[in-house]
Amino acid sequence: MTDNELVNVSGIKPSGAKIKVRVPGTSANCGPGFDCIGLACSVYNDLELMLLREPKLIVETVGEGADSIPTDEKNIVWRSIKTLLDRTKFGAEFKGAVIKMENHIPMSRGLGSSAAAIVAGLKAANAIVGSPFNRQELLQLATDIEGHPDNVAPALLGGFTVSVVNYGKVQTLSFLPKITMNFVLAVPDFPLPTWQARQVLPKEVPMKDAIFNISRASMLVAALIKGKERFFKNVFDDALHQPYRKGLIPGLREAIEAARKAGAIGAALSGAGPSVIAFTIEKQHIANDVASAMTQAFSSKGVNARSMILKLDTRGAHII
Amino acid sequence: MTDNELVNVSGIKPSGAKIKVRVPGTSANCGPGFDCIGLACSVYNDLELMLLREPKLIVETVGEGADSIPTDEKNIVWRSIKTLLDRTKFGAEFKGAVIKMENHIPMSRGLGSSAAAIVAGLKAANAIVGSPFNRQELLQLATDIEGHPDNVAPALLGGFTVSVVNYGKVQTLSFLPKITMNFVLAVPDFPLPTWQARQVLPKEVPMKDAIFNISRASMLVAALIKGKERFFKNVFDDALHQPYRKGLIPGLREAIEAARKAGAIGAALSGAGPSVIAFTIEKQHIANDVASAMTQAFSSKGVNARSMILKLDTRGAHII
Repeated sequence: MTDNELVNVSGIKPSGAKIKVRVPGTSANCGPGFDCIGLACSVYNDLELMLLREPKLIVETVGEGADSIPTDEKNIVWRSIKTLLDRTKFGAEFKGAVIKMENHIPMSRGLGSSAAAIVAGLKAANAIVGSPFNRQELLQLATDIEGHPDNVAPALLGGFTVSVVNYGKVQTLSFLPKITMNFVLAVPDFPLPTWQARQVLPKEVPMKDAIFNISRASMLVAALIKGKERFFKNVFDDALHQPYRKGLIPGLREAIEAARKAGAIGAALSGAGPSVIAFTIEKQHIANDVASAMTQAFSSKGVNARSMILKLDTRGAHII
Repeated sequence: MTDNELVNVSGIKPSGAKIKVRVPGTSANCGPGFDCIGLACSVYNDLELMLLREPKLIVETVGEGADSIPTDEKNIVWRSIKTLLDRTKFGAEFKGAVIKMENHIPMSRGLGSSAAAIVAGLKAANAIVGSPFNRQELLQLATDIEGHPDNVAPALLGGFTVSVVNYGKVQTLSFLPKITMNFVLAVPDFPLPTWQARQVLPKEVPMKDAIFNISRASMLVAALIKGKERFFKNVFDDALHQPYRKGLIPGLREAIEAARKAGAIGAALSGAGPSVIAFTIEKQHIANDVASAMTQAFSSKGVNARSMILKLDTRGAHII
């Protein structure tokens, strides 16, 4: 059997067939929604996947992280593909792949680049073998691989997401807000691995800080779904992770303050950082001002940061 | 000047005029929304108020708590009236009142009886003196008197409420869910003062418990507003207050379990307890079964409890 022969199962693509998927970048936490609220934004990684029967792995990457992404079996896209295939009868059949990535999501900056890689691998592999897994199953698989749903959920589903993990089982509700926002990202020029950002968090926190976040996360979700602008005041604030992480990110506090002063309705660490995400009302046309204010604030603390002005991605991962 | 003379200000009722207001009972926390989520339910206290120029206080109560409610200056309805009046020029003018209460909200059971008293006093006094305070100002006043917005917010506004307190300033978003529920209350025959229920709470909590509640509170709000039944699974669970309070309430754990087994989508301590509130989908017609199951569970632990089957109150405090 050669790579180009048809697999004799209805709906299954020939192993020589290429599938191309697009996956959005994501921002987790959104301030108070630590480890549960996330959003998908309009910056994308594209994956073109071809499965091979021979144990051969070809990984080609252009764009973000092209120089640092592993091209061997450690490659996270490949590991995700393999995880999915091994849960089907195709695990024994396909032992290799040609993986072509075109990456626009900055790596290790708090914009869900690893989640995008996982979701891309799962979504593409699933499509090639005839979509044996539904969205919920892909979400669970992606969460198992990443360890938490914060970024994989919005990467897969799009929109804003709220996720609950109950005894390892994930549930995510995705919704579109009744308000059109821009997300202004200030992306520092140093990476911050998530494990390092997690290490500085305490095991116990003051009850009042827990209540601080519960109330703001609840209000954030309600205000987004209802589209009530006047309730956005202070709802992007956090007491549970940002205070502990600010030592790792010079300029964090200043960038958040600068964003607010420039008219953003709020700003927060994007995921575990180091990027900062500011939220602006689109019709106010202040995204550029906020972007400048944030990069200048970082600069005043000796940090070079580039800015990105993004919108909500409403589709999540999809075949292109 | 006598009580029956008109006060010479446009819109002000004569001091002899009576105002009658109706205020709903409330249930705070709803499981994970500790100190921020609440709901108003269809059990009411009515207040008939007449302000007096002479320093005379007449308090008549029928119904719940009739034997134990103070009839002197300590009366919480009167104190709320006085607080409001003292912020206007009428504080010097009206020095007494005739307060007639008809109470159906059980007292000190976690159903917001003190919040109802505060809101009733404020709402009635405000109406009599020409409504100088708007809803937001009444909410702030009520929160200042009660110390927290958990119950006064839904009592005033109706519906489900999410409240955030920022440097003492309260903001509440009230919403109606896209799903019709019954609230099944099991009300034990012993009171539990809130101060006592607060005393058992720790100052610090595990970070994982904080995340447990943040994710479920966020999901609860999203699922309610969107009316998505399948997301209600486990979202009424709590890790921040119920585990510490169960020692004060024999049968709490059993009543919650019994409610779930009888088909409730969830159950939780109502406010600081001792009542337990179960949430059922109205069209499933299981409220009676859930009520029996809960009172039996309490009974098995030696606790007499009565049940109430309520609906959402959508109006909040209003003049009748």
